[in-house]
Amino acid sequence: MTPSADLVISGCTILEPGLTFRDGATLVVRDGLIETVTGAPAPAAVRHIDARGQVALPGLINCHTHASMVAFRGLAEDLPTEEWFNDVVWPVEANLTARDVALGARLACAEMIRAGVTCFADHYFAMDEVAAAVTETGLRAHLGQAFFSSQGARGRAESLEFALRHRDGAGGRITTALAPHAPYTVTEADLAATAALAQEHGLPVHLHAAENRDQTETSLARHGVTPIDVLERTGILDTDVLIAHGTGILDRDLPVLARARGRVSVATAPRGYLKFAWPTTTPVRALREIGVPVGLATDGAASNNSLDVWEAMALTALVQKSTTGDPRWLTARQALDHAGPQSARALGLDDRVGTLAPGTRADLILVDLTGPHTQPVHDLAATLVHSARSADVRTTVVDGRVLMHERELLTVDVPAVVEELTARLPALQERGHGRRVQEYDI
Amino acid sequence: MTPSADLVISGCTILEPGLTFRDGATLVVRDGLIETVTGAPAPAAVRHIDARGQVALPGLINCHTHASMVAFRGLAEDLPTEEWFNDVVWPVEANLTARDVALGARLACAEMIRAGVTCFADHYFAMDEVAAAVTETGLRAHLGQAFFSSQGARGRAESLEFALRHRDGAGGRITTALAPHAPYTVTEADLAATAALAQEHGLPVHLHAAENRDQTETSLARHGVTPIDVLERTGILDTDVLIAHGTGILDRDLPVLARARGRVSVATAPRGYLKFAWPTTTPVRALREIGVPVGLATDGAASNNSLDVWEAMALTALVQKSTTGDPRWLTARQALDHAGPQSARALGLDDRVGTLAPGTRADLILVDLTGPHTQPVHDLAATLVHSARSADVRTTVVDGRVLMHERELLTVDVPAVVEELTARLPALQERGHGRRVQEYDI
Repeated sequence: MTPSADLVISGCTILEPGLTFRDGATLVVRDGLIETVTGAPAPAAVRHIDARGQVALPGLINCHTHASMVAFRGLAEDLPTEEWFNDVVWPVEANLTARDVALGARLACAEMIRAGVTCFADHYFAMDEVAAAVTETGLRAHLGQAFFSSQGARGRAESLEFALRHRDGAGGRITTALAPHAPYTVTEADLAATAALAQEHGLPVHLHAAENRDQTETSLARHGVTPIDVLERTGILDTDVLIAHGTGILDRDLPVLARARGRVSVATAPRGYLKFAWPTTTPVRALREIGVPVGLATDGAASNNSLDVWEAMALTALVQKSTTGDPRWLTARQALDHAGPQSARALGLDDRVGTLAPGTRADLILVDLTGPHTQPVHDLAATLVHSARSADVRTTVVDGRVLMHERELLTVDVPAVVEELTARLPALQERGHGRRVQEYDI
Repeated sequence: MTPSADLVISGCTILEPGLTFRDGATLVVRDGLIETVTGAPAPAAVRHIDARGQVALPGLINCHTHASMVAFRGLAEDLPTEEWFNDVVWPVEANLTARDVALGARLACAEMIRAGVTCFADHYFAMDEVAAAVTETGLRAHLGQAFFSSQGARGRAESLEFALRHRDGAGGRITTALAPHAPYTVTEADLAATAALAQEHGLPVHLHAAENRDQTETSLARHGVTPIDVLERTGILDTDVLIAHGTGILDRDLPVLARARGRVSVATAPRGYLKFAWPTTTPVRALREIGVPVGLATDGAASNNSLDVWEAMALTALVQKSTTGDPRWLTARQALDHAGPQSARALGLDDRVGTLAPGTRADLILVDLTGPHTQPVHDLAATLVHSARSADVRTTVVDGRVLMHERELLTVDVPAVVEELTARLPALQERGHGRRVQEYDI
């Protein structure tokens, strides 16, 4: 006799690989994996969720964030990039303690679970605390300890130590990367050494590059090369590299990216580009033409104001239509492709998440479409991308474990985290010391 | 002894006139009006809402929509403007019956109440049905029966009859306007006649004009004048006129608008402009410089996919920053000014709604900021505009009547409306007949 499944979800519509929808689906989850997707009646299970009227989607993936920066949400508003960094963010980050990062990470995990995010790529400081928050809250994460060359050799060494210490942590839910900050804050020698470490230890790299057009133009003026050229000549493009933003990627960079020997991917976080009034956005269409996957992201809440990947999905569609001048491009279906398969590829996790198929990890969300704002349904992909909102996610499951059910968070005590974090804010936001973790001087 | 108030809301933070926040406020509502806003303990009331941890805002105002088009949500995706009109929307609108409009309006009212919208400006067909839905659901609305010159004199006459029949309807919650469709579908003679009727009957005008840059350029090429020039020379600018979109307003139009003798206002619905890949958005900053209020809007759900004015508020801030290249412009505080006072002025309702002050109608919403995505709060305006979502609205009040409490709709039976509307969709979306209500031929 077959023992009971761990979790069965029945009666839902499911987004299957190939971006097709199937109605009346029954998902059977065992040992953290999706065992079957059928139209059969629900078998016996330890836990059964009746999901009639709901849509099962792959959990959203936040491909580039700084989770703990939720502590700075709303602190640096309506500022140009340089002032945002130099006058607010980098001064207050000089105050950060491990406890601040721990609390911020827990609050961020709560926000993401409620928004249907099941995995996030984080790039920050005191990352042991983020790994602990991931372990505790049940999310999946791709973590890297950030470093600047201004830290000397110690920064790179600690990034490596973190990556090795936490690789395959939290029962396999944590993967790691080396995390140099960006070509304008990390020297070419340091990038080259990072690339060598990545090769030696089989680690990917996650960094900011060509974030905006100014950075690219300054790099060209000062050094005669673009940030993407720097990644190539330092060997970073020979590794599996996740590039955050890339709104400053030029046409001349495309063949460079196309010939990269590593797996190159880009994370796009369009809300911040609008808010900073950057003149360009991530060239998603051009990257598609050279086969570079583009994952969805929110960046940190200090610029994006939320970790709402659902909003990033809709904005990616809208901003891509607008910037290409083509309303037919980046359809709702393509947006779902970026949200699931492409985001999973961007993090090198497409062997386990990003699509709902037997054998993949059970990272999924259930979305309620019975609200008046999502009815009637003429085109389910359009309803999901353009009418539904993150608040329509009712249930969030990672590795077969239910982290939110009927919008109730099951693994984070939000009021306790907010209370302790709020008490720490006066010290955290103090800028009278005049210090910064780094200088924005592209 | 003073009789009990009808409604008391206590313990909230309130956005007061002048865009300042006051903590620990008690609002007393009587006879549909805000009687007092104090810091005093809650007096006796028929109904008491303890709103600790919530923010009281003026109800959102949707300054331009076609509510019943929720029936077509998701039916015309990823299309250029001309195909959207000629191949889908205007053919299916040839099928519209009064019952379809009635059901669509009820679904739209439900969506808006849940999104914190307390008033909407509607411009559509079979508007008696929309007026009935407004009466029944308890919203406030500014209604106009749309007409094209292709309908002959009958269209204009019916628009007038509607406006006179429903003026001050629903206990004063309904105001009305004459509603010619647009300068490219209504002749100059018809616009001039409309302007004369507006003057004769003391009615405002609500129409589309200079919707996009193509319309303006075609008007210049064909007639040597812009759509705004047409409004001036037909006398429309001598009336109180609400212009939808105006993304095709040119610099040369600004002095024309500035010298208008009527109260000119513009409604901006930025999501659709991105989705249609229009090259420009509403010139909010230039309009501000000449004193023209710009209200927030969603347009219909066939283009915008929702009636989420909260999203329009955030997108207006983001898109204005992006298109002007200035991250300091259209701050969160300015976005709240567009959402409240400017939207009320746009509809000529600033004598009664748009700010929360004693003597104004009690049209307000309560927003919960305890969620992880809205904590911590460094800047309350930024939290509201950039972190909060329409789903954070817990309670919606119009004219002192609670239409939604703790997200439960009290005046619309959504499942019944959806069931009947869904059954009608096959007939509604039939396009084999080859008819259209109008031709998009700018």
